[in-house]
Amino acid sequence: MAGIADVARAAGVSKATASRALTGSGYVSEATRERVLGIAASLGYVASTAAVSLATGRSQNIGVVMPYVSRWFFAEVLEGIQDSLLRHGYDLTLYDARPGTEGRRRVFEDFLARKRFDGLIAVGLEPSDNELERLVAIGCPLVSVVGQNGRTSVVALDDEHAARRATEHLVELGHTSIAFLGGGGPHWAHVDHVRMLGYEATMTDAGLRPSHIMSAVTMPGGYAAAVDLLGDSRRRPTAIVGACDEVAIGAIIAARRLGLPVPSALSVVGIDNHEYAEMFSLTTLEQSPHAQGSQAAELLLRRLREPGAPIEHVRLQATLIVRNSTAPPQGVPSVAVGAGAAPSA
Amino acid sequence: MAGIADVARAAGVSKATASRALTGSGYVSEATRERVLGIAASLGYVASTAAVSLATGRSQNIGVVMPYVSRWFFAEVLEGIQDSLLRHGYDLTLYDARPGTEGRRRVFEDFLARKRFDGLIAVGLEPSDNELERLVAIGCPLVSVVGQNGRTSVVALDDEHAARRATEHLVELGHTSIAFLGGGGPHWAHVDHVRMLGYEATMTDAGLRPSHIMSAVTMPGGYAAAVDLLGDSRRRPTAIVGACDEVAIGAIIAARRLGLPVPSALSVVGIDNHEYAEMFSLTTLEQSPHAQGSQAAELLLRRLREPGAPIEHVRLQATLIVRNSTAPPQGVPSVAVGAGAAPSA
Repeated sequence: MAGIADVARAAGVSKATASRALTGSGYVSEATRERVLGIAASLGYVASTAAVSLATGRSQNIGVVMPYVSRWFFAEVLEGIQDSLLRHGYDLTLYDARPGTEGRRRVFEDFLARKRFDGLIAVGLEPSDNELERLVAIGCPLVSVVGQNGRTSVVALDDEHAARRATEHLVELGHTSIAFLGGGGPHWAHVDHVRMLGYEATMTDAGLRPSHIMSAVTMPGGYAAAVDLLGDSRRRPTAIVGACDEVAIGAIIAARRLGLPVPSALSVVGIDNHEYAEMFSLTTLEQSPHAQGSQAAELLLRRLREPGAPIEHVRLQATLIVRNSTAPPQGVPSVAVGAGAAPSA
Repeated sequence: MAGIADVARAAGVSKATASRALTGSGYVSEATRERVLGIAASLGYVASTAAVSLATGRSQNIGVVMPYVSRWFFAEVLEGIQDSLLRHGYDLTLYDARPGTEGRRRVFEDFLARKRFDGLIAVGLEPSDNELERLVAIGCPLVSVVGQNGRTSVVALDDEHAARRATEHLVELGHTSIAFLGGGGPHWAHVDHVRMLGYEATMTDAGLRPSHIMSAVTMPGGYAAAVDLLGDSRRRPTAIVGACDEVAIGAIIAARRLGLPVPSALSVVGIDNHEYAEMFSLTTLEQSPHAQGSQAAELLLRRLREPGAPIEHVRLQATLIVRNSTAPPQGVPSVAVGAGAAPSA
């Protein structure tokens, strides 16, 4: 198998230059990099990564820490990160840090301290003070997806704005009894709390009384809470803002189960544009977690190339997609109906 | 920071023994391993993994190759693998190999060849001959989840058995017009094909005519195909076997949309016991992908400790869970009704 010396000789550069081109560390002109990579490929050169790591202090590997893998948002972010890293020739090491588990404690205490990566991406991690201290102590570039943090670069949806737009859409349709479904309790994620605050502010601005219905932020969670809420005709609102699409879809399934037609008896709006949103004709605020993951990876790789680059905060705004889960409340003419909100089964 | 010499001195063992205990490579008694690990933790010892890798040829890292991360089955398997690896102190490097993508080609041609892992777990990979050759050429222990392969250890559901039980359940309820929904086309996954064959064999054994309805093996895919199938009263079966729960749930959503009550007008059975199965009262065959992931990781780590150990094939049998999505067809008395199959909305 060809070694780095063979590659350097064939490319007519020094071993140091070949190494810089092959590992992506340090300056080398684009033309030289391409020539070296082309020759390396034609010779079938594969670096001994352990040796490269010792020599360069670089591992060509990015760590990704996230609390859930099997939830839609996180899985999409992960695929976006992986897409970008693959393109740049980086490996991805995954650290699963579910809140409150022994595994999470070990990830922070043992695994991250090994520092087998050049940089870290934290997705919706919401670290405790102690955990944040450990992350910073690792001393490598860090980019967050979701959340806000003065000390790291962040790519995140403007959650308050998304919840405001969702609520405004229902207010404009003429709804006055609008509940926010999802979140609450000791493990209430920051992002869901911020969305609830956006809903509350919009309700208060419109002179309406906000009402928060607690539920797990999952489809079965939204379903169970909505069965309770909608089953009681005295408490039943005419519209629901879901903390996310999964919760909103749970509410639609509950309404169908109870024989309440959507949207004529109940309007439902979500936040996400989840892969199931279209199947349920769900009106929602669209975000792209896949693009957020890619963007976070690109930000991180840029920081690796330019260590002095300033911290960047990318705040994204969701777009309203009106489908058939929202309509004016029955018997109430709307005050300013948006396009495409015609009722349908 | 403490080095390996400090750990060895404090534990009263040689550096070689301390190294074996810390890296998990080579023999060391359980008592010594625990003493060394305890002392290493108390001294705050963190290995330079690049140096350890060069010295031992071991990376304390396992590669996981899977075609999808965001599908329920794969995400659950991944969490199961991660749980086990965390317990054993191994990192997990993820390789995303979606069929037909440039990324997959690069994973097989470049990333896996770097061999930054001690062993590989392939989840539902269905490698081409060329890809399989590359996997074997890497020369490290390999365990597969899903599928069958004479050359590697495998942990997998007995898919034919699961589909047979699902179909038998409907036949026992008295159904004679039963369709299999899901799969087909050029990218038909082996596992879904095997399930269809199990369905076909059971239908033929019962003297009934099998009918395969093609669809993507996703909830929206099952929904769209079921809307077509159920919308035409001349083609409409009285029961559906879904290739998996996601397809089956898509069919239930379609039936509700069309005003066909489940199970009185249509029985539906799935395979998986997906996290949404209970919300839809879905009768299904239960498997645990989380446990399959853990088991695959344990198998792989055992092969690392005992390189000469024989290849193992773990074949799991799914259990029928009867909920309220299945009942005898209307107007047809059942021939041998299972427990708990009472009709309900």
